[in-house]
Amino acid sequence: MRTVFWDYDRHELKMIDQRLLPERLEVASFREHRSVAQAITDMVVRGAPAIGAAAAFGLALAARESEASSTQGLFADLQAAASLLRSARPTAVNLAWALERVLKHIADFAGPVEEMRQAVLDEAQRIADEDVEINKRMARHGATLIEDGDTVIHHCNTGALATVDWGTALGVIRMAHEQGKRVHVLVDETRPRLQGARLTAWELSQYGIPYEIISDNAAGYFLRTGQAQKVFFGADRVAANGDVANKIGTYMLALAAHDNNVPAYSVVPTSTIDLSLTHGGLIPIEERSPDEVLELRLMGRRVAPEGARARNPAFDVTPHRLITAIVTENGIVYPPFDTNLPNVVRPIS
Amino acid sequence: MRTVFWDYDRHELKMIDQRLLPERLEVASFREHRSVAQAITDMVVRGAPAIGAAAAFGLALAARESEASSTQGLFADLQAAASLLRSARPTAVNLAWALERVLKHIADFAGPVEEMRQAVLDEAQRIADEDVEINKRMARHGATLIEDGDTVIHHCNTGALATVDWGTALGVIRMAHEQGKRVHVLVDETRPRLQGARLTAWELSQYGIPYEIISDNAAGYFLRTGQAQKVFFGADRVAANGDVANKIGTYMLALAAHDNNVPAYSVVPTSTIDLSLTHGGLIPIEERSPDEVLELRLMGRRVAPEGARARNPAFDVTPHRLITAIVTENGIVYPPFDTNLPNVVRPIS
Repeated sequence: MRTVFWDYDRHELKMIDQRLLPERLEVASFREHRSVAQAITDMVVRGAPAIGAAAAFGLALAARESEASSTQGLFADLQAAASLLRSARPTAVNLAWALERVLKHIADFAGPVEEMRQAVLDEAQRIADEDVEINKRMARHGATLIEDGDTVIHHCNTGALATVDWGTALGVIRMAHEQGKRVHVLVDETRPRLQGARLTAWELSQYGIPYEIISDNAAGYFLRTGQAQKVFFGADRVAANGDVANKIGTYMLALAAHDNNVPAYSVVPTSTIDLSLTHGGLIPIEERSPDEVLELRLMGRRVAPEGARARNPAFDVTPHRLITAIVTENGIVYPPFDTNLPNVVRPIS
Repeated sequence: MRTVFWDYDRHELKMIDQRLLPERLEVASFREHRSVAQAITDMVVRGAPAIGAAAAFGLALAARESEASSTQGLFADLQAAASLLRSARPTAVNLAWALERVLKHIADFAGPVEEMRQAVLDEAQRIADEDVEINKRMARHGATLIEDGDTVIHHCNTGALATVDWGTALGVIRMAHEQGKRVHVLVDETRPRLQGARLTAWELSQYGIPYEIISDNAAGYFLRTGQAQKVFFGADRVAANGDVANKIGTYMLALAAHDNNVPAYSVVPTSTIDLSLTHGGLIPIEERSPDEVLELRLMGRRVAPEGARARNPAFDVTPHRLITAIVTENGIVYPPFDTNLPNVVRPIS
């Protein structure tokens, strides 16, 4: 089952509700683009490629919701829907990329309005299908970086759940495993939302890949004591100079890898690369509710004192000097990134 | 109320049960040195100076438990008790330091065995009283490093709860606050046991010092975006070259501080400095139960999948090149630490 998919019988978008895993696997249905935007904000669906596909299907819902009888009227409704969907989360560029791609696809549409509605859905479906193909291409490139017997530290969740299917960084690890390489994963639990302990651990157990969960704090210890040979993560946006915005904590992990001469790889579809931004300081960083930090319970007891406040930036920027290589579907990109990244990125046609 | 204190009416050791905070403040009583050792292992009491004092009082209990009628017999019983107490936790050297100090104090005792029992208690009490004085001296030295308006990142708990009273790194922050400096604390929650979110946040709210809890992952973000001017932490053991063993995550925090030219200070009583070890690689690192990582619940739901495994090193070693200065009761020590640390440490007499 895909993480994000269109139900052609019921004309609705279906997505695995990732907030409920690993306790239960439940699929939520969506018939309105507004509820898709809310689901992206609430992280029912998360992961840069997955929210891109979800937003594209959100436009397909908007096309069905629209009562426009002209292509111009429908296009205006879709632009408004895209604007709402785009604002659901600010950091991952895939969201804007997927919306722009769908809008460009039908911008000059000449034909019956009903066919334009279908064209929106078709393009969203292509984005979803291509995502799976792209992930497998990335995985084959990236798997060449993993050696038999490697222990790999992995941050956040970048597996099938973060994409339409298969995954980015975790897809690389999965490919290496399927190729018969022995690989052990140290899973950063990834506070505050614990995507590692909840989602990555669950995926790895499904794939039969051995793993151990660690607190994010412990990654430095394992790197410094020579117990990990590679670090892998995804990205939510890569700037033109190779700076990587990714889940909070990636910067500290990459620093620890660099300090111990352990390579750190970011695995991304080229739709995550934003050549319009010269450096990572220009990437908008979402700050989420303090409740995500404060709501923790340990042995049934509330952790933070009553009245405690918190700060909760959801992403950080890892400077390109700490990134060994960026793995894309079009090959592995090494520094200098500002020169080499443009060679793999193709503009939306 | 002190974190660790002797009840002279009931002839027992009393300690705040730190596992229950911030939900409730409860004082546990101990009449046997074995249960004190267990309480140290279980982290009823934690913090390097606090477990030193607890172990010293544990010897006072062992002296009462011993049925020896000769000083030699009592000394042998105390040595056995010290051996048990010493093994309760391996990393913090204060535990061994306090036990050695009590044993040395009564090693050549000549007099009635009852007076020797009293001498054990007296020395334990002196260790406890001195700890409070030492902390305040450290705090006055360290407070000179904090400027009015500073935002400080603090790791783990190093306050009154980590000591007999007042605190080490948090004591510095408290002193600066009492001196009228405006200081804001970003509190690393400190996974896996969340001493920051539970204990440091609770202490800061008691002292009226403004703070916000952050996930440990976020410290790098605040340092890189210029939102923090100082980093403070304690230590469980400092090697002769200035390498600092401290709560897991300190190394990654110090790396992030260093990468942004933010000073990182370790605040320790000289009893935490172990000149017998030439470098931090020789410090034994405790690995605790995986349950501490896995038992987390988020919104009432179990986080890790069934059958998940975890690794849980409790400490890491921060290399001295990342430490700006070590604050002790005898002054602030700057690099080169191997030359300068011996000037502040006095041997147990």
